Amino acid sequence: MLIRPKDGILDPQGKAVERALPALGFEGVHDVRIGRLVELETDDLASLPELCAKLLANPLIEDYEILGEDA
Amino acid sequence: MLIRPKDGILDPQGKAVERALPALGFEGVHDVRIGRLVELETDDLASLPELCAKLLANPLIEDYEILGEDA
Repeated sequence: MLIRPKDGILDPQGKAVERALPALGFEGVHDVRIGRLVELETDDLASLPELCAKLLANPLIEDYEILGEDA
Repeated sequence: MLIRPKDGILDPQGKAVERALPALGFEGVHDVRIGRLVELETDDLASLPELCAKLLANPLIEDYEILGEDA
């Protein structure tokens, strides 16, 4: 699942990376947003949305997206 | 781009989540691995691998994957 800052929520980590890049020689990079990637194995796919909502993402400032991959 | 712990490298954050889940009522979840999701806009796609390698991932313990999305 992918967890990313909600649109409109300030992402200080992304901003910090964005500001550091020109000094390292990377120009023209903008709209940097940093979220989290969570990979796991489970047989109980139906419980995943609840799991995301409860444990892994802060619903006030983050959104999650669930990507499936059949084993 | 997706940044994830390399196979075989201990992922303490993932292990902690995995151990906490049964107490919250989620059974049967295993192989939890936690990485990072970085989203950005750039016109200079050719520089992205260097950017990942240099700045965003620790190459000793993390791998990165670049996913494109044309605007």
